[in-house]
Amino acid sequence: MTTLQDTMQQIGRQARQASRVMMRASGAQKAQALLAMAESLSTQRSALQSANATDVEAARARKLEPALLDRLTLSERSIDVMIEGLRQIAAMPDPIGGLSATTVRPNGMQVAQMRVPLGVIGIIYESRPNVTIDAAALCLKSGNACILRGGSEALQSNLALAKIVAQGLIAAGLPQHAVQVIDTPDRAAVGELITMTEHIDVIIPRGGKSLIKRLAAEARVPMIKHLDGNCHVYIDAQADLNQASDIAFNAKTYRYGVCGAMETLLVHKDVAAACLPTLAKRLSAHGVELRGCIQTQQLIPQAILATEEDWATEYLGPILAIRIVDSIQEAIAHIERWGSGHTDSIVTQQIAAAQQFQREVDSSSVYVNLPTCFADGFEYGLGAEIGISTNRLHARGPVGLEGLTTLKWVLQGNGQLRGH
Amino acid sequence: MTTLQDTMQQIGRQARQASRVMMRASGAQKAQALLAMAESLSTQRSALQSANATDVEAARARKLEPALLDRLTLSERSIDVMIEGLRQIAAMPDPIGGLSATTVRPNGMQVAQMRVPLGVIGIIYESRPNVTIDAAALCLKSGNACILRGGSEALQSNLALAKIVAQGLIAAGLPQHAVQVIDTPDRAAVGELITMTEHIDVIIPRGGKSLIKRLAAEARVPMIKHLDGNCHVYIDAQADLNQASDIAFNAKTYRYGVCGAMETLLVHKDVAAACLPTLAKRLSAHGVELRGCIQTQQLIPQAILATEEDWATEYLGPILAIRIVDSIQEAIAHIERWGSGHTDSIVTQQIAAAQQFQREVDSSSVYVNLPTCFADGFEYGLGAEIGISTNRLHARGPVGLEGLTTLKWVLQGNGQLRGH
Repeated sequence: MTTLQDTMQQIGRQARQASRVMMRASGAQKAQALLAMAESLSTQRSALQSANATDVEAARARKLEPALLDRLTLSERSIDVMIEGLRQIAAMPDPIGGLSATTVRPNGMQVAQMRVPLGVIGIIYESRPNVTIDAAALCLKSGNACILRGGSEALQSNLALAKIVAQGLIAAGLPQHAVQVIDTPDRAAVGELITMTEHIDVIIPRGGKSLIKRLAAEARVPMIKHLDGNCHVYIDAQADLNQASDIAFNAKTYRYGVCGAMETLLVHKDVAAACLPTLAKRLSAHGVELRGCIQTQQLIPQAILATEEDWATEYLGPILAIRIVDSIQEAIAHIERWGSGHTDSIVTQQIAAAQQFQREVDSSSVYVNLPTCFADGFEYGLGAEIGISTNRLHARGPVGLEGLTTLKWVLQGNGQLRGH
Repeated sequence: MTTLQDTMQQIGRQARQASRVMMRASGAQKAQALLAMAESLSTQRSALQSANATDVEAARARKLEPALLDRLTLSERSIDVMIEGLRQIAAMPDPIGGLSATTVRPNGMQVAQMRVPLGVIGIIYESRPNVTIDAAALCLKSGNACILRGGSEALQSNLALAKIVAQGLIAAGLPQHAVQVIDTPDRAAVGELITMTEHIDVIIPRGGKSLIKRLAAEARVPMIKHLDGNCHVYIDAQADLNQASDIAFNAKTYRYGVCGAMETLLVHKDVAAACLPTLAKRLSAHGVELRGCIQTQQLIPQAILATEEDWATEYLGPILAIRIVDSIQEAIAHIERWGSGHTDSIVTQQIAAAQQFQREVDSSSVYVNLPTCFADGFEYGLGAEIGISTNRLHARGPVGLEGLTTLKWVLQGNGQLRGH
């Protein structure tokens, strides 16, 4: 009898083997595979949608929440978006093989670094079948093999998508095992995946914070992970107050659920009276609940008194905490104490304040005169995004194709010897 | 009663606090601290040497091996080397604060990445007191706080060195807790160190493979670690055979104990007869034991028959395994199967072979016409080396100051809003 562990080991070995071939694949081959997948998606819409319908019906029978059902459903529109995504990634430059930092040592040997794939990437995600295509495309483009483990509610959809992916790989002469979808709903498969250090080089979990925390606590394979996004906007004494108001409003209301949404607004005491009442009116009119420190309450009567709990909370909803501070130092100290190191912004017209904030705030993204909701790989010009990392090592902030690669040293000489 | 865990937590909190200040320290301040340490080392030699003598006597009484005693001893010469190292690191450019990859997005916002410290670094090492100074200096220069845990045999020496380091930090107005030496010989302290994810950003273990493997298995904090260095030289059909012989001889004999030492020599069958007998004579005369495949034995009668065990072994001594291969593909496949992904080299005059080898061999360093023993940060021009990483993520191969830093995104705008 084959155990789950045997199956997972087999998948791991196949991935490693495929990764050796993927490492050497040309940019043209990888683009060909991606375009073939786009083509297959387009011609096999109906088969894909009927597989998806099975998942959706089962989920509906199990009374899944409407938001989850929505994510699970592959509409015409969401298939179009996947096709477009594949074409865009196909058109991007090949991230692999380029040399950087070439220097010549005194003995004449050349030292450079070559960008190479990470190897095998495991991706664990919830029941959003579009992630299957996104993740497969990004891993493929960056020369990696991947093992995909989606939510069990999306299994039939993911298996249908896996077939389409395999067709694309085969059409381009690439190994089918370069993208494998785990087809068992057994949750123990995830436990195997995050501990197979010999076969998997990195795990990227996508999903809710509690899932990621639990995985991180048990993983032996390194993870590129996203935890909290408790983001701040600080309105400095020297800010353009109209700009500040627009930035704060956009940072909170662009979308409540994105990790770059502002959760706490810090305002310098010198401009609080001039700026907060109108901004508060605008936010309240938009349905945002306001909580604030005692000074804030004096300016915004409708604000509930904020507690330390509020400074610590990533609401991901229509709630905003507001605190009035005496100085930029106090704002930076608040962010250091309560922030999550994700994305924080200062609104100021003063160069010195902007520089101090950008230098001293230890977050993966630090902005000047921009709303925190810009935290996104596409907005940064990365062309694609596998996620946003709250790690300090390797990839930090929005992770594009480069985050799925690493560097190796390549040295060229003509017989130099050491110690001679 | 204060438990070990409390003590370690306290050290961790102090380190985090100090790291906030170190992050903002100017290059001038950091250089001043390093030069003050060099000065203190120079003026306090006798106090240092008497602390060291206590360690050495105790170790001698416990009948430590001569090699270990040698590493433990702080001679005049080794103190001079530490002083010189501090001055060199002081003179290096500040790795922190520079911007790279600045682009302007269509909406006018500027996107760049700023090099910043990792935060708090834990370093675990054996009884070489000079590592205390090296590691402290590199962490300080890169704006990190560090927690040092040396071998218990060197405790008195390390505490004396810690005093000198503290004097340097204080002289430059930097926090004393930026460098902390753990002063308990209790081994459980290491277990705490490698799991304090909230206070420590990365652990760098230096020492024997078995120590590192054990730590890696238990760590929760990410590690920059060095495991195996099973390095290969491959002599291609189109090699300059005199050059090949010199490279192979140097790769094996420069120093047997370095991780870049060649452990297996691969030779193309077309040049084996022309190249192996003289090379074998030279190696044997130097005291190197030869083991080889059957074809090798036909050319080198003194060679013992190699087994799979030999292909897998990092001898770190005067033994060399030799295998004759039919093609460059077979050489690359051997390295893929048996190598450790550390450093591998091809000797060839053919561009196509060099390119294929550099592209396809998945090691942290891949050379053309150079001996593998060049694997060293100083040889690569890094100016300093904290170690060599066999990780794939973050830092790979020789790790200099840059490996102790990370990047944060810094964006500057003038009120751009998202979705507008």
